[in-house]
Amino acid sequence: MEAAILAPALDKSGGGHSLPSPYLLFLGDTTDRSYAKTALGLADWAPERCIGELAVAGCTVTTGLPAMTPAQAAAAGVRALVIGVANPGGVVPDSWLPALVDALEAGLDLVSGMHMRLADQPVLAQAAQRTGRKLIDIRVPPAGIPVGNGRKRTGKRLLAVGTDCAVGKKYTALALHRAFVERGIDADFRATGQTGILIAGGGMPMDAVISDFEAGAAEILSPDAPATHWDVIEGQGSLFNPAYAAVSLGLLHGSQPDVFVVCHENARKVILGMEDFALPAIEEVIDMTIRLGSRTNPAIRCGGISINTSDLDAGAAADLLARESDRLGLPAADPLRGGAAFDALVGNCLGSASVGHD
Amino acid sequence: MEAAILAPALDKSGGGHSLPSPYLLFLGDTTDRSYAKTALGLADWAPERCIGELAVAGCTVTTGLPAMTPAQAAAAGVRALVIGVANPGGVVPDSWLPALVDALEAGLDLVSGMHMRLADQPVLAQAAQRTGRKLIDIRVPPAGIPVGNGRKRTGKRLLAVGTDCAVGKKYTALALHRAFVERGIDADFRATGQTGILIAGGGMPMDAVISDFEAGAAEILSPDAPATHWDVIEGQGSLFNPAYAAVSLGLLHGSQPDVFVVCHENARKVILGMEDFALPAIEEVIDMTIRLGSRTNPAIRCGGISINTSDLDAGAAADLLARESDRLGLPAADPLRGGAAFDALVGNCLGSASVGHD
Repeated sequence: MEAAILAPALDKSGGGHSLPSPYLLFLGDTTDRSYAKTALGLADWAPERCIGELAVAGCTVTTGLPAMTPAQAAAAGVRALVIGVANPGGVVPDSWLPALVDALEAGLDLVSGMHMRLADQPVLAQAAQRTGRKLIDIRVPPAGIPVGNGRKRTGKRLLAVGTDCAVGKKYTALALHRAFVERGIDADFRATGQTGILIAGGGMPMDAVISDFEAGAAEILSPDAPATHWDVIEGQGSLFNPAYAAVSLGLLHGSQPDVFVVCHENARKVILGMEDFALPAIEEVIDMTIRLGSRTNPAIRCGGISINTSDLDAGAAADLLARESDRLGLPAADPLRGGAAFDALVGNCLGSASVGHD
Repeated sequence: MEAAILAPALDKSGGGHSLPSPYLLFLGDTTDRSYAKTALGLADWAPERCIGELAVAGCTVTTGLPAMTPAQAAAAGVRALVIGVANPGGVVPDSWLPALVDALEAGLDLVSGMHMRLADQPVLAQAAQRTGRKLIDIRVPPAGIPVGNGRKRTGKRLLAVGTDCAVGKKYTALALHRAFVERGIDADFRATGQTGILIAGGGMPMDAVISDFEAGAAEILSPDAPATHWDVIEGQGSLFNPAYAAVSLGLLHGSQPDVFVVCHENARKVILGMEDFALPAIEEVIDMTIRLGSRTNPAIRCGGISINTSDLDAGAAADLLARESDRLGLPAADPLRGGAAFDALVGNCLGSASVGHD
């Protein structure tokens, strides 16, 4: 175990990446909206950070933002071009390079969540050096992450946890953060994955952190804050996922949440990609999260349940949510459907409403 | 979460590092035995891998092995010089360089567990390139670690777990492995930390693995084996350590142990370096290890308790071990003291003896 503290190079207010913004969203030559999920998600969840979009020949997808050249974007205050599309190979195709070099020459930094590091593309590395601009790979954690110290920090924290990966933890945390702010609460969304980091303009790619520093990375992501401030922290993986539970436990210990929300997808019956592993019951996730989370915050409690009910029609979804709420004695909501059930979840997380649903 | 499998570059039979051996143990200019723990541990636990020792001017420590020049060692079949000393700064001092370059020129690879990477020392990097020898940093995990898949593997596995870091998990696993082999059991010691890796001649530095791959790293460390074969796996950290629990959980899930032994240091009352955190009770560690470990091996059971009683005299130690065994209904032993209590622990781990102590 590594007690050394590495060279400090971290953002003080919420350690991790701190990205230059606002953004110009790059769509490449995409013809499939599902490949442009990042750009579309940014336009939806971080409109204040997104000024325009840039595509190359062949692209048929739009975020609805105005098309801009890099020079026009720079003149409008944009500071970074964000690669908002995935492509099947995970690499930067040659057809994108002229536009990306243009962006560097217009004074923009490049931000990417792709597998391939931007600097491994020689044309980009040379252009960045020539122009003095930055190539920022948000999959790569910043240097200087300390080991965890377990010290209780000031302020309130909520963590989204899950019955599995990819069940709506990011969406739930974003929706809760938005609802907190709408109620006048001082709150920050703390991102732990790539899309979340782009939306928040910063954060920590928890799954890319060396395991000895996992809890420490979560600790610096949600630093001391005023007593009434809330950090709403995006979850990762699941304590019950045989591949990724290490990520989830380090994040839980380091986040030391006061409140957690269990996220679940109604249609999911087995662990994603592992059909021999049944999904845990929601009550198992509640119990285990309290047992493990109480190590760093003895006051931890479950604020309620967030269920992705996209497989059901509105009536069936309402029935399911009411049934689960009754069964568990906690608010249960689908944030995408909102309504009184979601209001009850928000209220119970904040401790300002009785447990219940309509 | 990262589903990609990186370029394969792993040893097939127990993934991770596979070190060239036998070794020449390098002692530098050490005058304090505690700085030479690695060399002394290797001479004790891996005598078959250690042919000789090499020191430079000023050294007053010896492992008892014959002093050899690199050329003599190479002639005797040695394949690697192992840096068997730590030094306070964690770097290679200039006074060591001539001896290390000599070793490369004599045809030996260099193996190090120091913080500083060998290749970051230009003199060594150049000498390695000139001689075609390898610089092996065992703190750095090999490339190509896959994400976990949770598949049940053949063969038997034992994992040492702990109430904390540095309570005797490596020593316990080594002692159990030695006892298994003495009983004619086909068994491998699987190392998860630096000293263990040097002793075993290979292994996986679990605390240096990226968290998304933590369970996958443990899976490849103990591959499929014959039904009667035992892998005895060195533990890391503790599920109750607020800094390092992520390492422990990934190792537990990926190891899918049939049997675990809880390691504890009698004198330890709080988590190392964190005085606000009480050590968990042994029964809490048993319960949590079974609950979390049953995710990947529903048949997991506790084989017994290993207690470091170095703070007690022989009579008090025997009393404590008997008391703990009665209280927990499991064998309790101090491997360093051995005796009937340790035999009972070994027997219960193998499932070949009734629970008990003398």
